Amino acid sequence: MAYFDAASALPLHPVARQALVAAEADGWADPARPHREGRRARMLLDAARETAADAVGCRPDELVFTSSGTSALHRGVAGALAGRVRAGRHLLVSAVEHSAVLHAAEAHRAAGGTSAEVPVDRLGRVAPDAVAEALAAAPGPTALACVQSANHEVGTVQPVAEVAEVCRAAGVPLLVDAAQSLPWGRVEGAWSLLTGSAHKWGGPGGVGLLAVRKGTRFAPPGPVDERESGRAPGFPHLPAIVAAAASLRAVRAEAEAEAARLTALVERVRARVPELVEDVEVVGDPVRRLPHLVTFSCLHVDGEALLHALDRAEFSVSSGSSCTSSTLTPSHVLRAMGVLSEGNVRVSLPPGTARAEVERFLDVLPGAVAGVREQLLGPAASPAPAVDDGEELVVDALGRRCPAPVIELARAIGRVPVGGTVAVLADDVAARLDIPAWCEMRGQEYLGETGQAHRVRRLA
Amino acid sequence: MAYFDAASALPLHPVARQALVAAEADGWADPARPHREGRRARMLLDAARETAADAVGCRPDELVFTSSGTSALHRGVAGALAGRVRAGRHLLVSAVEHSAVLHAAEAHRAAGGTSAEVPVDRLGRVAPDAVAEALAAAPGPTALACVQSANHEVGTVQPVAEVAEVCRAAGVPLLVDAAQSLPWGRVEGAWSLLTGSAHKWGGPGGVGLLAVRKGTRFAPPGPVDERESGRAPGFPHLPAIVAAAASLRAVRAEAEAEAARLTALVERVRARVPELVEDVEVVGDPVRRLPHLVTFSCLHVDGEALLHALDRAEFSVSSGSSCTSSTLTPSHVLRAMGVLSEGNVRVSLPPGTARAEVERFLDVLPGAVAGVREQLLGPAASPAPAVDDGEELVVDALGRRCPAPVIELARAIGRVPVGGTVAVLADDVAARLDIPAWCEMRGQEYLGETGQAHRVRRLA
Repeated sequence: MAYFDAASALPLHPVARQALVAAEADGWADPARPHREGRRARMLLDAARETAADAVGCRPDELVFTSSGTSALHRGVAGALAGRVRAGRHLLVSAVEHSAVLHAAEAHRAAGGTSAEVPVDRLGRVAPDAVAEALAAAPGPTALACVQSANHEVGTVQPVAEVAEVCRAAGVPLLVDAAQSLPWGRVEGAWSLLTGSAHKWGGPGGVGLLAVRKGTRFAPPGPVDERESGRAPGFPHLPAIVAAAASLRAVRAEAEAEAARLTALVERVRARVPELVEDVEVVGDPVRRLPHLVTFSCLHVDGEALLHALDRAEFSVSSGSSCTSSTLTPSHVLRAMGVLSEGNVRVSLPPGTARAEVERFLDVLPGAVAGVREQLLGPAASPAPAVDDGEELVVDALGRRCPAPVIELARAIGRVPVGGTVAVLADDVAARLDIPAWCEMRGQEYLGETGQAHRVRRLA
Repeated sequence: MAYFDAASALPLHPVARQALVAAEADGWADPARPHREGRRARMLLDAARETAADAVGCRPDELVFTSSGTSALHRGVAGALAGRVRAGRHLLVSAVEHSAVLHAAEAHRAAGGTSAEVPVDRLGRVAPDAVAEALAAAPGPTALACVQSANHEVGTVQPVAEVAEVCRAAGVPLLVDAAQSLPWGRVEGAWSLLTGSAHKWGGPGGVGLLAVRKGTRFAPPGPVDERESGRAPGFPHLPAIVAAAASLRAVRAEAEAEAARLTALVERVRARVPELVEDVEVVGDPVRRLPHLVTFSCLHVDGEALLHALDRAEFSVSSGSSCTSSTLTPSHVLRAMGVLSEGNVRVSLPPGTARAEVERFLDVLPGAVAGVREQLLGPAASPAPAVDDGEELVVDALGRRCPAPVIELARAIGRVPVGGTVAVLADDVAARLDIPAWCEMRGQEYLGETGQAHRVRRLA
């Protein structure tokens, strides 16, 4: 069994497990109480805060623990916006932020605020210039900008320090979602707020952190209490916080060596997958990337079916394809990048992954993809009649989910002469992404979308 | 060392500790992922939900886990209010609810809503008639009523089933904060929403539960995600949830026998404390009460000093006195009841408390109180001159914290003739509560407050 979904969650680091058990004995009481059990808990909490602040690179009194990374983002975005409500009500986020940031932006709009997304390039990178342009184009003063340190789906590392400079020049605070990069090192640059999530570094679930640099205006959203500087209410699971801090320190001590090792393994996957599997697009920045994460999309493959095939072969991976999401829309990250979303697989290696496991994955993958493709494409159909010159071939894929529309397009294209056109009628939103991506991969011309018809000209 | 602060938090139940360690091995992955680690986590989460729902007395799909009892209350109140926003924007809460409910009410008012408090009697009881009156007197349709199942500071059990009937008749949903009573049994009656907190029953901190009965309108507040039916966002600490559910089941299995045992120990404390210590008021309902909790207030005693004296004698208790709270105001619960707040001590016995520990507490208490009183009262002052007939004696205690104003009053009263009056100038808000309470205990007449002057007539 190989677990290659580290970017989602990791098992407890051994140091975290030890700390959790020890702190359950000493740190179960309410740290706000003055009795000795409370004081003992308080000391553990203070020590955990110092450890975490050191790892983040902030002062302990700038850092609070929250009930999850998601909560840190929700509270961080809402608190920073409320703190700057007199400056403005505009929120700027990159188009590839974690869904928790997008949900916070949604809530902000529902409450009467405005928001805009900074686009990314095909590698998923947020250009500092694009941030500057978006700030200049904002409908009013921008209250907050959010840019992640590294993308959780494709691994692209963002130029946070440069973005922070752009924001500083504009007088706009920058919130950095550092969930994916924090295990690997501090986020450099003049960020104003930063968030993290313990289960990404081998700490327990249910522990997030929110750092707010001194001088950043912040008004905690909703009801609060006296805990965590009034920024995160509720009795916490203190032993989990202690374990999270211990784990972060331990993971950081191993980070450099582990990053070098995993970078090489990911390099191997990035190089081999396109050689082993036809019609694959490896996505994300090949150089400025997280050490342990690689994502690729496979044409004519249903992402969910591929996940299950890999699961049967004892590999646990993740997918940003439409078919594994409860909302049935393809990953907003892949959409923003304009890359193929079908048959999407994210491999994120946990620390300690053995080279042999990666090789076994590479052995298994081609068969898994072929199996799914065979099932989808079915037996070779009897050759369909060709279409006459000048006539457009219409393929009706309405009501069918991706990758069916792309598969039908691939089957139909050979029936029109070079220069002829195919119109694919499709209502699955992923088609809007995957038909152009298919054209680019196949050297055909995408003519655009009218209503639900995607028109393609045969070039080859 | 005896820990008598069970109402604040309990150490992990042995069953919870086992479950936590076991679930860290099997339940660390994201239960939303389709791979086998995710599916295993999902199974644990589903089983925990069934166990908790059975203990609460609701359907599993009516119950979600939150990141704390506080969060369950904040989300429950906000969600129920938002769900009924078309019906009205008035919120009714009892005057003795947990501060998390009062904070939620504050946030509701800040957002333009209205709220009112249902008063309690001297035993801390919310009368169903008082709820009916408050509903009738509301400025508009009431969107939600909140009444706890039992009070966390004085142990009074509320007539929730009758209150629920009153609410049902008025078409108003009732939210019951069951944090203190849930370890002891289900909350009977037709409540609409119910909350609980795992560290009150030997589960880990950072786990709360929120039940919303089918048919109750509910609109989750703020940004949400796909977790917990969209009612509690963020990656949870699943092993803690598993441990919480296991602990609740285990505690319930022992509840009846343990309740009988602790009820007798508390009975002993309630009877003996007034015999052992002069000028003590035992507060809360003597009969309809939690089995494990007793609260008393000691005249002429600084609550914080008494807590420290008991801590030195190896007893960990809690206090609702002004002096232990960060806000420097006396407990809103004691204030609502109109009882003495100074020298307040809450004893809440954990399951398994031995009779001998309680006896030792009763041995230690008189000396601890005497020590604090001696320090506060100081050596007997040289007799101050008496005041002539008809003249009012003015005692200036401005700027001095309780219990100083009451101590000065006690010293001054002998200087005026029977029928004469003393005016105590005091700006500590606790004086407003404690001077009338002192008069009642001492058989003197409280004439009321004008500005910062509290006037007392000597009757004896």
